[in-house]
Amino acid sequence: MFTCTGYAATSAETKLAPFTFERRDPGPNDIEIEIVYCGVCHSDLHQARNEWQNTLYPCVPGHEIVGRVTRVGAEVKDFRQGDLAAVGCMVDSCRSCDSCREGLEQYCQPGFTATYNGPEQGTGANTFGGYSSHIVVDRHFVLRVPEGLDLAGVAPLLCAGVTTWSPLRRWGVGPGQKIGIVGLGGLGHMGVKLAHALGAHVVLFTTSPGKEADAKRLGADEVVISKDADAMAAQAESFDFILDTVAAQHDINAYLGLLKRDRTLVQVGAPEKPLDVNVFSVIWRRRNFAGSLIGGIAETQEMLDFCGKHGITADIEMIPISEVETAYARMQRSDVKYRFVIDMASLPKAA
Amino acid sequence: MFTCTGYAATSAETKLAPFTFERRDPGPNDIEIEIVYCGVCHSDLHQARNEWQNTLYPCVPGHEIVGRVTRVGAEVKDFRQGDLAAVGCMVDSCRSCDSCREGLEQYCQPGFTATYNGPEQGTGANTFGGYSSHIVVDRHFVLRVPEGLDLAGVAPLLCAGVTTWSPLRRWGVGPGQKIGIVGLGGLGHMGVKLAHALGAHVVLFTTSPGKEADAKRLGADEVVISKDADAMAAQAESFDFILDTVAAQHDINAYLGLLKRDRTLVQVGAPEKPLDVNVFSVIWRRRNFAGSLIGGIAETQEMLDFCGKHGITADIEMIPISEVETAYARMQRSDVKYRFVIDMASLPKAA
Repeated sequence: MFTCTGYAATSAETKLAPFTFERRDPGPNDIEIEIVYCGVCHSDLHQARNEWQNTLYPCVPGHEIVGRVTRVGAEVKDFRQGDLAAVGCMVDSCRSCDSCREGLEQYCQPGFTATYNGPEQGTGANTFGGYSSHIVVDRHFVLRVPEGLDLAGVAPLLCAGVTTWSPLRRWGVGPGQKIGIVGLGGLGHMGVKLAHALGAHVVLFTTSPGKEADAKRLGADEVVISKDADAMAAQAESFDFILDTVAAQHDINAYLGLLKRDRTLVQVGAPEKPLDVNVFSVIWRRRNFAGSLIGGIAETQEMLDFCGKHGITADIEMIPISEVETAYARMQRSDVKYRFVIDMASLPKAA
Repeated sequence: MFTCTGYAATSAETKLAPFTFERRDPGPNDIEIEIVYCGVCHSDLHQARNEWQNTLYPCVPGHEIVGRVTRVGAEVKDFRQGDLAAVGCMVDSCRSCDSCREGLEQYCQPGFTATYNGPEQGTGANTFGGYSSHIVVDRHFVLRVPEGLDLAGVAPLLCAGVTTWSPLRRWGVGPGQKIGIVGLGGLGHMGVKLAHALGAHVVLFTTSPGKEADAKRLGADEVVISKDADAMAAQAESFDFILDTVAAQHDINAYLGLLKRDRTLVQVGAPEKPLDVNVFSVIWRRRNFAGSLIGGIAETQEMLDFCGKHGITADIEMIPISEVETAYARMQRSDVKYRFVIDMASLPKAA
């Protein structure tokens, strides 16, 4: 075991504060990473505040992790000390169910081990995330970071990036297709960048007229203000695919009606309450309403390699870890373009 | 033009009553059919009562039509006087959009012409359905009836049959698969019969314990009482496909959670109000919630041929047309096993 420093919430009511804890020394298949940057995902806030009623405390959030390898286990042949490395939302899974064998560990039948909040395979114990100095992760769940990208902007690719990449790839988004991205937040801005780089005609839907110029800079070919009924009607039945990143309650039928026959809207934003689906929205053109959860390890690596090739990173705002609660408050009112990333050099040294 | 007799509603408030009207003489591509039987679909009631706020009066319902050919147009080479023939939910479509060219006329882009309530292509005029002595339909929308089936039991195949057949085929239901059918009414009982004949392992979900024996007789391998939480939990994440035929409000998430990863629940029953879809129901295993509308002409013929080969007809209760309002009342309380069919010989002769 060795001592790490980090930031943790110790209850739903307490703010995140400096925290010292132990991690295992790397086993034969493990990689130890000194964390350089960690993105701030809305899930971090949900979990820290116990909004999903399943938080194990102390809670060290963070699953958009990039850093440098400091130690490797004896069986790890393809990472060396000093290499860049990244960790996303998962640090383990059962590795034997159909989904794991297909490289879709996010759908692991007994359940994957999340980077923070566990449960550890077998024991159900807690895990500690990326708001910390180091992390030790099995090689299978460690990603390679392509050369030449801004490292801080890479961090959000590990969750926001792959969460949009996975459905774009699964539903075959590419050239010649008209694609909708709903919402321009952390997920949405990655959806726009990735769908654009995949060659699709990208239409960004937003409630905020002020986001139009930025959406186009990010790669949108068109921007539709979703409150403009005429603008929405003009898009009816014209889409090959829609990715909905909105986590607030909203009218999903307004978007289902924009799909062509047999096409799919995939929800990746997760509103707390159910969405009202008008059955005629799906019956009328045999449309699909689907969901998608983060992405598997192989497709995360594929996405990182694609981003390396296309020079894609997230648009970020860097913060010291002492400002994480301020960042949470701003994130709650969508006041960030488009992801906060913690500079881990700001972490206090162990007492 | 020639004179037909039938039953019509003349307003949302009036009961169906004898009605005399004119139909066109068959044109070069038309077939005139003397109607022998017509099934009673819940849509007939919705339309007669103007529950969809779009009824054109007088309204002659009926789109589950079987009969014998009495006249054929000069260009019709493959039907002759005396042949059995059938007509379903559509009598025309634009014939030039992508969906029409793919044989999916039910998704015709400008909209198909329904067998009753129009709108006629080009004119928007009303059409009169199968609660009548004769019907004149373009050859493209006339189906062949296989030999050897009980003709009255064939009538409901034209709507209830193809509405379940189309999604079963579209989503590739067959041997080695575990399939759920939700609800045992007119649609559900056809879903059970067809899925069973396609070789799937069929599980029927019903709220009524009294339907178990009948469901098994119809072809269900298992019956689950959906109000039994333990029985539902035992089916979690085990289904390759679920067809939901329930037109009343119900908890769709209870069924979405029974699907394996990447599988689809197709809604064919059409509740008036939206269904609450918990986003986690679809995100968690990347599941799909889809809809499906009746079926195209080619697949309707395919279904009829399949039924001929497998000896499948609907389970019906025959009524004279004078009892159609009684049948509507019973249908509203699901008191029918499983479809009313009108014996058109009971139609009063023209005054």
